[in-house]
Amino acid sequence: MSNSSCLAIVLAAGLGTRMRSALPKVMHEVGGLPLVGHVLNSVVQAGADKVAVVVGPQMPELEEHVAIRVPHATCHIQHERLGTAHAVKAAETAYSETCEHVLVLFGDTPLVTAKTLDRLRSRLAQGADVVVLGFEAENPFGYGRLLESGGELTAIREEKDATDEERSVSLCNAGIMAFKGTVLPSLISEIRNDNVKGEYYLTDAVEVARTKGMRVVSELADEKEVQGINNRSQLAACETVFQQVQRDTFMENGVTLQAPDTVYFSYDTQIEADVVVEPNVVFAPGVQVESGARIRAFSHLESAHVSTGAVIGPYARLRPGAQIGEEAHIGNFVEIKNAKIETGAKVNHLSYIGDARIGSKSNIGAGTITCNYDGYLKHHTDIGADSFVGSDSVLVAPVTLGKGSFVAAGSVITSDVPENAFAIGRGKQITKENRASSMRETLAAAKAAKKG
Amino acid sequence: MSNSSCLAIVLAAGLGTRMRSALPKVMHEVGGLPLVGHVLNSVVQAGADKVAVVVGPQMPELEEHVAIRVPHATCHIQHERLGTAHAVKAAETAYSETCEHVLVLFGDTPLVTAKTLDRLRSRLAQGADVVVLGFEAENPFGYGRLLESGGELTAIREEKDATDEERSVSLCNAGIMAFKGTVLPSLISEIRNDNVKGEYYLTDAVEVARTKGMRVVSELADEKEVQGINNRSQLAACETVFQQVQRDTFMENGVTLQAPDTVYFSYDTQIEADVVVEPNVVFAPGVQVESGARIRAFSHLESAHVSTGAVIGPYARLRPGAQIGEEAHIGNFVEIKNAKIETGAKVNHLSYIGDARIGSKSNIGAGTITCNYDGYLKHHTDIGADSFVGSDSVLVAPVTLGKGSFVAAGSVITSDVPENAFAIGRGKQITKENRASSMRETLAAAKAAKKG
Amino acid sequence: MSNSSCLAIVLAAGLGTRMRSALPKVMHEVGGLPLVGHVLNSVVQAGADKVAVVVGPQMPELEEHVAIRVPHATCHIQHERLGTAHAVKAAETAYSETCEHVLVLFGDTPLVTAKTLDRLRSRLAQGADVVVLGFEAENPFGYGRLLESGGELTAIREEKDATDEERSVSLCNAGIMAFKGTVLPSLISEIRNDNVKGEYYLTDAVEVARTKGMRVVSELADEKEVQGINNRSQLAACETVFQQVQRDTFMENGVTLQAPDTVYFSYDTQIEADVVVEPNVVFAPGVQVESGARIRAFSHLESAHVSTGAVIGPYARLRPGAQIGEEAHIGNFVEIKNAKIETGAKVNHLSYIGDARIGSKSNIGAGTITCNYDGYLKHHTDIGADSFVGSDSVLVAPVTLGKGSFVAAGSVITSDVPENAFAIGRGKQITKENRASSMRETLAAAKAAKKG
Repeated sequence: MSNSSCLAIVLAAGLGTRMRSALPKVMHEVGGLPLVGHVLNSVVQAGADKVAVVVGPQMPELEEHVAIRVPHATCHIQHERLGTAHAVKAAETAYSETCEHVLVLFGDTPLVTAKTLDRLRSRLAQGADVVVLGFEAENPFGYGRLLESGGELTAIREEKDATDEERSVSLCNAGIMAFKGTVLPSLISEIRNDNVKGEYYLTDAVEVARTKGMRVVSELADEKEVQGINNRSQLAACETVFQQVQRDTFMENGVTLQAPDTVYFSYDTQIEADVVVEPNVVFAPGVQVESGARIRAFSHLESAHVSTGAVIGPYARLRPGAQIGEEAHIGNFVEIKNAKIETGAKVNHLSYIGDARIGSKSNIGAGTITCNYDGYLKHHTDIGADSFVGSDSVLVAPVTLGKGSFVAAGSVITSDVPENAFAIGRGKQITKENRASSMRETLAAAKAAKKG
Repeated sequence: MSNSSCLAIVLAAGLGTRMRSALPKVMHEVGGLPLVGHVLNSVVQAGADKVAVVVGPQMPELEEHVAIRVPHATCHIQHERLGTAHAVKAAETAYSETCEHVLVLFGDTPLVTAKTLDRLRSRLAQGADVVVLGFEAENPFGYGRLLESGGELTAIREEKDATDEERSVSLCNAGIMAFKGTVLPSLISEIRNDNVKGEYYLTDAVEVARTKGMRVVSELADEKEVQGINNRSQLAACETVFQQVQRDTFMENGVTLQAPDTVYFSYDTQIEADVVVEPNVVFAPGVQVESGARIRAFSHLESAHVSTGAVIGPYARLRPGAQIGEEAHIGNFVEIKNAKIETGAKVNHLSYIGDARIGSKSNIGAGTITCNYDGYLKHHTDIGADSFVGSDSVLVAPVTLGKGSFVAAGSVITSDVPENAFAIGRGKQITKENRASSMRETLAAAKAAKKG
Repeated sequence: MSNSSCLAIVLAAGLGTRMRSALPKVMHEVGGLPLVGHVLNSVVQAGADKVAVVVGPQMPELEEHVAIRVPHATCHIQHERLGTAHAVKAAETAYSETCEHVLVLFGDTPLVTAKTLDRLRSRLAQGADVVVLGFEAENPFGYGRLLESGGELTAIREEKDATDEERSVSLCNAGIMAFKGTVLPSLISEIRNDNVKGEYYLTDAVEVARTKGMRVVSELADEKEVQGINNRSQLAACETVFQQVQRDTFMENGVTLQAPDTVYFSYDTQIEADVVVEPNVVFAPGVQVESGARIRAFSHLESAHVSTGAVIGPYARLRPGAQIGEEAHIGNFVEIKNAKIETGAKVNHLSYIGDARIGSKSNIGAGTITCNYDGYLKHHTDIGADSFVGSDSVLVAPVTLGKGSFVAAGSVITSDVPENAFAIGRGKQITKENRASSMRETLAAAKAAKKG
């Protein structure tokens, strides 16, 4: 990573009409993070100390997201849409305070890596004034071609303006550029709009720079890394590439994925070696899984921590704030939210544990529910170690069950239970001999009457 | 769509022994609809005002399905299996009353579109007497080749009878034909069975028509569209093509599919723009989803309606008759059947709501169950707006909870609760100090005794 | 299958460092069975009456697995890792008692079939002394090439030692060999370690055999069948091939897989014709499904039996010991463990049935839980035929519900219920008019106080 000061300008004002969406295009997600969030991550990781995002008018959700991801970033509204150079100019207040390097990227190219941005900056450090990122296109049709001569980039030629010979060039423009901070302002100000659409194109910076005798070069990236997104199919294709990279990386690091194609990761998923992930698991954002844990089929995890040796699922849902201790078991049809399940504790069946602590080695019976919400406030349930909560119990929070306490099956617990105490709260069984037969007759008669 | 009168003859008598199934071949499903149902949909959409289905003996489920899908269709039993022309002849009562156009299709070719059938009819309108649908085969081996000369179809040549030159033809017979209604009866009656198997082949109609000086032409379709189905692998392959078409169409229309390959649609699924569908969702038949709704991972929907802004899942199951109002939430491990969940109501965890109405903004606690069945009849539960049902409650139907009512957690509710009333029905908690310790001793002793 | 006596030597001592795992490489699983388990199955099926497994030091889980799968197998520890011939020598006590045939295989090649091993043995029976299994490599780079002349194998040439001409050979060494039992001891003892690494290579047996005038030949296998596994990606790729073979086989046999790519089978899954399997189903080991059953989406089955006409799921989990009778229904969010659900019985919603019998035609209401565990011992619940258990009931085991008994919704049942008796055990409902309004005021005030 370069030590020079660096400004990244992220162009994110596009409406993305082909997405057919009310949401700004760059706010659509890949790996659980908006497209622009990926780009912001990469520029920060590549050492950009200043970040300017060019947004469209009335895109509050975008401005909010930028503020959360990169608090020191500035947003600049492009009021009219007059081309990419015009968009860059919207961030003039940012680039007028000179940084040594300026990166210009699009917010809809989420897979670009910091490594690639580093390479662009290295080229600046080695003497280039302008660097254009290119890629070898499998099918170049429609892309601007990078024309080179003597190791320098001489022009970016659009498909429609290209000769047959130029069309045969497969090195294409990825749309990402790097500038020496000292040259950007004059280049932008000299780009003209004397073209059919009357727009200002950033690609014209190459020609302007050449006429000024500057050194313009290209740098290569993988085609998959620089794919932009214009519609939902491309969004899905980008998600597929993202997932494939994640899966391969985890497998290399010693994670077993029984059916890699059925496991979905987020941009920030962390999984250690010797974790086994069964088929059909979704990792929403914010999940860490420690070594030796097993994530069973059909599980869904979000903002949760799973410790060494824990077993999750099948059909377990860990919601934000779930902290699963070592060797703890979370079983089928169980939802854990904002709760700490301590070492070796078990919640194996059909339960909802929210806003709670379950002490180590405690056993929570099937169908147990923490009643944490009264319609107005959320309350805490605290269960000490070595406790036993019988099946189908309701724990009405706020409530505390002491260490070693025992709750009878089917109880509604509304008062605290001391250490080693036993609590029961349920109706008493009454059995009436032969009553079922007469009830059946009554019910059958009702059914017959309804039909008749 | 042509205005001429039109008869469609659908050949569906085949046993499909390679399916190794007790079910008639055309009753196997793609996208939740029997194969023959897809064909019936296409012929009706292409303007067939008469539909005749040729079935085998003892296929009541097939005849029933035809009657449901196209009430005015007629079924004709082919008692012996003596070839495709013999099958057509089984529908003689249908084609003897002349229609202007007659389409002959196979019931096991479900992906043929109305658009393609329209093209066949246009060719008839333009003067052809017989039109044969063909396709460019990636691998023509085994298919009958369409031999053409001077813009007319001269013959359909079977693989075994073809010369080397004819074998090099890649235009193959798709098995679907269109006839002028006036010519069909005589063509069928003149087809002979002087061949090895002694069968009557519909493809011989081409030769007969040519000898009578009729105009026979071919029309082209995509290979994927006309694939027939003879075994379970082909059925699965057809399902894959069907799903791919559905996924692409939804994405074009502005639906976000996070992992398109893991979402399964039915033939009649309707989803508006800006709906987000997470991975691993199944849309069984009869589902509509309005704009802005989110269908979370691992959800299963069938004959259900989801309104704008609603959130479904993860792990939600909507069964027939589920109507989810605007901004309503149906959470994990929740089953909704024949129930109306009104605007902004929430059923977030581990519940079964069947035969019910839940008023707007009501909150149904975790583990709530409507007890709608007494073993003989189903009963209704009605919950007014702004109600609060505490966790793990049982609502024994028929029962009404008034607007603004409040049910304590763990209650069994058997009588109506008036507006703004509070109801509680549960055992009272009894706590016995230090009892858990002695119970543990007793239980541990029992365990030791059992082992010993 | 040959009748000659046969010893199989399975080399399984490798650490598999590229797996980045604490588990021995061959203990990683494909189709729910450790890699070495697949190899053991194939050798036993190919008629090996003696099996020797060469293991590394301190691999107790591997030795244990071998003992379970093939009780009469012997394990031999290779203390140092000095090459494949050295590994074979570790089993000297096994091959010194002569068998007619000796197969040498690697424990990390799980897809090799008994059929292929049969072919190797046939070549021995036809007079070969040594047979080497080869495959036509799509990309031979890196593999040892099988050089042949006059129908005999003349050498196995490693990539690094090969001439350009030899490198163009695409017939590669699969690593599996067969020997006449009489020749193996002398071949192994004559292999030398005069090479760069100072190791003893089993492939050198070819050269030694040739110098002794023995007949050495090669036999061909499919490349996919003989792929070894060295890292997690290869493990996942092998799992994919395994699943594809299983899916194709089941479809050929008349099973409908609606979305084959989303269904995961185990090595021992048994499914009869006319079973329909919906998307996203996992068959863990030990499952049998009889004809006409339907396994709905998102179901997970393990060591379970499903009888004719039963319907499982969606979202059903059958755990070990689940026996589902004919026409029985197991519905959503239901877990069945070690329980017999008899003909026509229904457990349709949100239930846990463990250690139980449910008699025929009984109906178990939503949210029913068998309380089978007291923290120390598991107890049995027995429900007779034609019983009705109301929703959200808890059955505290050990407990018996007689034939035709009826349990009211929301009951906790702790005592036996006689035949045709009615049992109820729940709190009585108390309703307080207008109380909800005042409660709301109190709660809202509490919320305001907390915020304020």
